[in-house]
Amino acid sequence: MEGKRVRVKSGNRTYEGTVMPSPTGSLVLKLDSGYNIGFVEYDDVKIIGEDERLVKIEPPLERDPDKPTVSILSTGGTIASRVDYRTGAVTSQFTAEEIAMIVPEISEICNIEAREIFSILSENMKPEYWRTLAREIYREIKKGVSGVIVTHGTDTMHYTSSAISFMLSTPVPVVFVGAQRSSDRPSSDSASNLICSARVAVSDIGEVVVVMHGSTSDDYCLIHRAVKVRKNHTSRRDAFKTVNDFPVGKVLYPSGKIELRNLMFSRGERELRIRDSLEEKCVLIKFFPGLNPEILNFYHERGYRGFVIEGTGLGHVSSDWIETLNEICQDSLVTMTSQCLNGRVCDRVYDTGRDLLRAGVIEGEDMTPETALVKTMWLLGNYDLDQARDLMRVNLVGEIRDRTEWFEDAC
Amino acid sequence: MEGKRVRVKSGNRTYEGTVMPSPTGSLVLKLDSGYNIGFVEYDDVKIIGEDERLVKIEPPLERDPDKPTVSILSTGGTIASRVDYRTGAVTSQFTAEEIAMIVPEISEICNIEAREIFSILSENMKPEYWRTLAREIYREIKKGVSGVIVTHGTDTMHYTSSAISFMLSTPVPVVFVGAQRSSDRPSSDSASNLICSARVAVSDIGEVVVVMHGSTSDDYCLIHRAVKVRKNHTSRRDAFKTVNDFPVGKVLYPSGKIELRNLMFSRGERELRIRDSLEEKCVLIKFFPGLNPEILNFYHERGYRGFVIEGTGLGHVSSDWIETLNEICQDSLVTMTSQCLNGRVCDRVYDTGRDLLRAGVIEGEDMTPETALVKTMWLLGNYDLDQARDLMRVNLVGEIRDRTEWFEDAC
Repeated sequence: MEGKRVRVKSGNRTYEGTVMPSPTGSLVLKLDSGYNIGFVEYDDVKIIGEDERLVKIEPPLERDPDKPTVSILSTGGTIASRVDYRTGAVTSQFTAEEIAMIVPEISEICNIEAREIFSILSENMKPEYWRTLAREIYREIKKGVSGVIVTHGTDTMHYTSSAISFMLSTPVPVVFVGAQRSSDRPSSDSASNLICSARVAVSDIGEVVVVMHGSTSDDYCLIHRAVKVRKNHTSRRDAFKTVNDFPVGKVLYPSGKIELRNLMFSRGERELRIRDSLEEKCVLIKFFPGLNPEILNFYHERGYRGFVIEGTGLGHVSSDWIETLNEICQDSLVTMTSQCLNGRVCDRVYDTGRDLLRAGVIEGEDMTPETALVKTMWLLGNYDLDQARDLMRVNLVGEIRDRTEWFEDAC
Repeated sequence: MEGKRVRVKSGNRTYEGTVMPSPTGSLVLKLDSGYNIGFVEYDDVKIIGEDERLVKIEPPLERDPDKPTVSILSTGGTIASRVDYRTGAVTSQFTAEEIAMIVPEISEICNIEAREIFSILSENMKPEYWRTLAREIYREIKKGVSGVIVTHGTDTMHYTSSAISFMLSTPVPVVFVGAQRSSDRPSSDSASNLICSARVAVSDIGEVVVVMHGSTSDDYCLIHRAVKVRKNHTSRRDAFKTVNDFPVGKVLYPSGKIELRNLMFSRGERELRIRDSLEEKCVLIKFFPGLNPEILNFYHERGYRGFVIEGTGLGHVSSDWIETLNEICQDSLVTMTSQCLNGRVCDRVYDTGRDLLRAGVIEGEDMTPETALVKTMWLLGNYDLDQARDLMRVNLVGEIRDRTEWFEDAC
């Protein structure tokens, strides 16, 4: 049927348009207005002859007063992209409205309000955009919606979701969702991820999460805590993994059943608050054998006061870094994380680590380097240096997990 | 028995010393010479009264002409460390001889020659030490040993093992081994890792590998290809994982049975050759949202011509990096890897990636960022820029795996 002009009867209305590829098997038409419209159920479909006159019909956005309302804020990325058949490359083109309408299953879960905030690939995300997004999410929640979905490119989704976690205290679910395969590919994960994110957006969760495929099949999505997740594979649909923690839960697909395992904040538990200052002069440096510590001075001389080091093993750098770190730590927040990614930083075991602690370097515990960087930007934007140092060691929104016996720790 | 003074009869010799903690359950004595000696079998043990006169006995290093000879080169690290009970910190103290003698099971596998090359924690490793080590390994192989074991701190073991892989063409196994828990802890993995490494050192392998615990139990070690492994956990004994490939094989413990799955070079397949130049002015830069491209100029102005970027997703950076990358690529080797770590870089899918390719950035395929950095140092040390660019794309020693259907790739 793809590509055919059809007339669809659904309830007491009739729509005409071209049949589009549909990842969920529902019927999706491209209307002459340029909008797409999707049908889970319809009464009748007729293929239209080329000589028939076509009528422009505006898409309906009927509200069901018995259903909760969810805002979809679109920022771009693969979930909002399709292949440009002229160049062969993938570009962001769909709008939030289109995303919502190409997956009509969402309308069975909630009423949708959709807005495009950005239309960028996520590698072009910047801290200043995080702030804009935080304010837009805040505005939606303030309006009284039951939840907010943010569609986002997957490359830096975990950086953005971490930033929103620190900036926004939310009483409702804020759900980041992306896709690893664009909507017009048969293996696209955008429809199932979106449907699962809508389930989470009306759930009992009261925190910022990332919802993405949990396996390479279409059987469930995982709900990851925003500050504990990272993209761990370049291309697999289950690329997102919770690191050093359990996921918050899972959404079975297509049943939509939610199983929660590790919830931190429930719906309504926190007041809506925003604290969106960020100190952008912060840097993440990955250590490697032979890296000269002059890189620390380079940034320090340019006014940087926030440093996250991705050290080796339990959190080490070469001992010829100690002297420079001693100086930098005088007026800067310097946090050690590990390029192992899994496990906890512990600088009390080996000589080098003890030297780092004496210099004033803070152990980043079990935070990912990415989350530690975003936390550094946020702390230095909102607190003085001493407060920032104290808060870096404290779990604020789930970014640091307590030591537990099931994690095999050396510390 | 620990701490007791004993006299041990073994064959026609008698030894006296203090019983030491033993991770394998064998009997280990500290002799008055300062050496440790271990016994798997012995005829008789007598506890010595405090009034008995003690006799100093030099440790034996008897050669069994029917067994192959393996060189153990010690560089330091946890496998060669113990707790300093004065400061509570762990320091490198054991010598290679002591390592060999505290694990007498090794003597049942092979004759041992042991030398200490360095005594440093591995975060202090530097490219210049890699070169020294390559020459020492070369010298041992030249002497005709059946294999070489390098004991190494785990933090940067995968950087060193990668460097040796590129620098040294070896006809015999070169086995890197470390420990996540020091020898005097009950949970130490040093004895079992060492015993497994000895099995590999006399096996049919003809390449550089890393042998470490494959599970959190003591049931097997994995044999990782040196250029495909990384330390993926700060503290677990099974911290080392082969990334984007199968391990070379496994060694069952304690049986010593070796199962090979993914061998690249067999014993005797390659000639012994060394090519140990390195260009140290190379840098690995991890990208994050907001990172200013001025960091590229900082290094380029200082004469750096080797750049490895740890980009996002399939291998991206912000599009405001393109202009600087265009300039840098004129006279530099710039390779893109992914901070996802798992999966393959593919810059042909999205606009940003295509801009990177046009600028002259090379796709790092499925190499880890760490291996790509070491390869860059080695290529620029031994080839001109054009050759280096060509060779960066080619699999030399197993660092790039062909695309196969069992890896779900977007490219």
